[in-house]
Amino acid sequence: MNNNPYYGPEGHGPYEMIDIGDLLLEDGGTIPNCKLAVATHGALNAAKDNAILVPTWYSGTSKIMEQVYIGAGRALDPAKYFIIVVNQIGSGLSTSPHNTGGAMTGPNFPKVRIGDDVRAQHRLLTENFGLKSLALVVGGSMGAQQTYEWAVRYPDFVKRAAPIAGTAKNTEHDFLFAETLNEAITTDPGFREGRYGSPADVAAGLKRQAKLWTVMGWSTDFFRANRHKALGFESVQAFIDTFMTGYFAPMDPNNLLSMAWKWQRGDVSRNAGGDLAAALGRIKAKTFVMPISHDMFFPPADCEAEQRLIPGSEFRPLASIDGHLGLFGTDPQMLAQLDANLSELLATRVN
Amino acid sequence: MNNNPYYGPEGHGPYEMIDIGDLLLEDGGTIPNCKLAVATHGALNAAKDNAILVPTWYSGTSKIMEQVYIGAGRALDPAKYFIIVVNQIGSGLSTSPHNTGGAMTGPNFPKVRIGDDVRAQHRLLTENFGLKSLALVVGGSMGAQQTYEWAVRYPDFVKRAAPIAGTAKNTEHDFLFAETLNEAITTDPGFREGRYGSPADVAAGLKRQAKLWTVMGWSTDFFRANRHKALGFESVQAFIDTFMTGYFAPMDPNNLLSMAWKWQRGDVSRNAGGDLAAALGRIKAKTFVMPISHDMFFPPADCEAEQRLIPGSEFRPLASIDGHLGLFGTDPQMLAQLDANLSELLATRVN
Repeated sequence: MNNNPYYGPEGHGPYEMIDIGDLLLEDGGTIPNCKLAVATHGALNAAKDNAILVPTWYSGTSKIMEQVYIGAGRALDPAKYFIIVVNQIGSGLSTSPHNTGGAMTGPNFPKVRIGDDVRAQHRLLTENFGLKSLALVVGGSMGAQQTYEWAVRYPDFVKRAAPIAGTAKNTEHDFLFAETLNEAITTDPGFREGRYGSPADVAAGLKRQAKLWTVMGWSTDFFRANRHKALGFESVQAFIDTFMTGYFAPMDPNNLLSMAWKWQRGDVSRNAGGDLAAALGRIKAKTFVMPISHDMFFPPADCEAEQRLIPGSEFRPLASIDGHLGLFGTDPQMLAQLDANLSELLATRVN
Repeated sequence: MNNNPYYGPEGHGPYEMIDIGDLLLEDGGTIPNCKLAVATHGALNAAKDNAILVPTWYSGTSKIMEQVYIGAGRALDPAKYFIIVVNQIGSGLSTSPHNTGGAMTGPNFPKVRIGDDVRAQHRLLTENFGLKSLALVVGGSMGAQQTYEWAVRYPDFVKRAAPIAGTAKNTEHDFLFAETLNEAITTDPGFREGRYGSPADVAAGLKRQAKLWTVMGWSTDFFRANRHKALGFESVQAFIDTFMTGYFAPMDPNNLLSMAWKWQRGDVSRNAGGDLAAALGRIKAKTFVMPISHDMFFPPADCEAEQRLIPGSEFRPLASIDGHLGLFGTDPQMLAQLDANLSELLATRVN
């Protein structure tokens, strides 16, 4: 068990650690006393119909969701909604490779799937918060994967769904993107098959992953427009070294790999014997599918193909040359589009 | 000096090795008795005005140019034109790290720029072939870089220019793409700072580079449309293992790195004190700029921005979901578009 100071309330709080009990995993094994790090904003109303769930993406925590997406005057306004941000398993705040002792520590952490997270969250919401429905599930990237999984698995529970920059079934191409990120880490000799002493031992691998994220996470147009300079970095190199490498360097490699394994295999069709159309056809939530125009990982065309399979859904692409990492909130105009869509979705009457 | 059987006339011939004498390099140093591997098709006419130059791309040789672009009934028809394919320095056929002995062998090979190749080719064409002009220079990717360099550096010599899927000045984003490819190789412990025994020692790094090329070289749409299956591979994994890894595995890592260094720094503005508009403004060749619609390395928008700076030029994008590696000739419809453009360009009257 590795005590990494990056993962803690100082940088990512406040949040509450909630033990949801033993979690049986789809790929075998059990996480005993699975703990979810949960941040809430606002209050549940008497009718218990104003709850919004926000799951997290790869490497992200509840903190960035709060900073970028939640606030007074925003679509996700704590004055109106009870907003529950749940850090995914493997995120470093919830039960994760780096904070689990014993036989499941580090590289021995079991394989966790999107469906495991969603079942854990369902137990949390029903048993700990006494919820019977969610007004909205909204998340980006792996948060979108969880959003789709929620809408397919619990069609009556989820009233509205807003998957942003993610897919219901991961594409083979996206699987490869993630594989190159993983290999940047695992091929660092300091990784030692997951038995490194600290992230610093894997600094070179984490830096290579940061460079790959720089190439794939933004877009050609982002750099041509000198958006990295607008964000305060004098050169692409400074952007890589300071921002991107600085972001990943303190993170635990086994945590990242645990999330990436899950990301690569996100697939709601597992709920319908491999039939994606059947799985998406189960969705009752009013769904706005919101890819980002310049996203290399989850291009709009991939998302639109899925959107067509969801009854009553709408395709609402967000325009931003910031690409996938526009999720970081770097483009105020994209956030404005997102808020407008979410406000409209939340105002939509549902059963 | 490393005797690699991959680079030879058995796999890449026929070609002639032509010694163009000592080549002084832009970044310092000299290649003594620089040898260019040259393949020709057709015959020079009496007016000496039917010569076409085809420079090569990263990892490519004259053989693929012949197989995919040259032939009876094609725009590049040996019955009409004298077509000269020159393998770039570092390609493995011309003077390269792996076939140079003495102090310049392997990792000690000097840095070569696009401008060095073009000056070497100019000497070859004028002194060995007695040419005073070229009816056309056409090349893809690094071949496009050389095409632009030719048109800027020798504006009266080049009558027509057709840069395909490449830029006149490499973008910062594309520089990063190439850097991740390089790092896949150089971080393999078997690379030993370029002092490996054979490419087999760097097999893991070459395979990682092949995977990155798989992700970046084709496109999301390519895999969604199962183009890899149409090309005869039962799965993406088989496509990576057999086709992509099989392609790179026998190549010399120092050769690849030598070409990549050159690719990253391609920039015709070096001919005009850093002023790209001034450099491209010198071009007298009738120029068709032909990016590939789904190219991640050289997106159409990057190419169009340069095209606007070239007097009398035309923007002729090629539509193909095969992306950058459509250059391999995998999409017959793209080749048909290319041929139609080249035929039209060759039929255009010039001074």
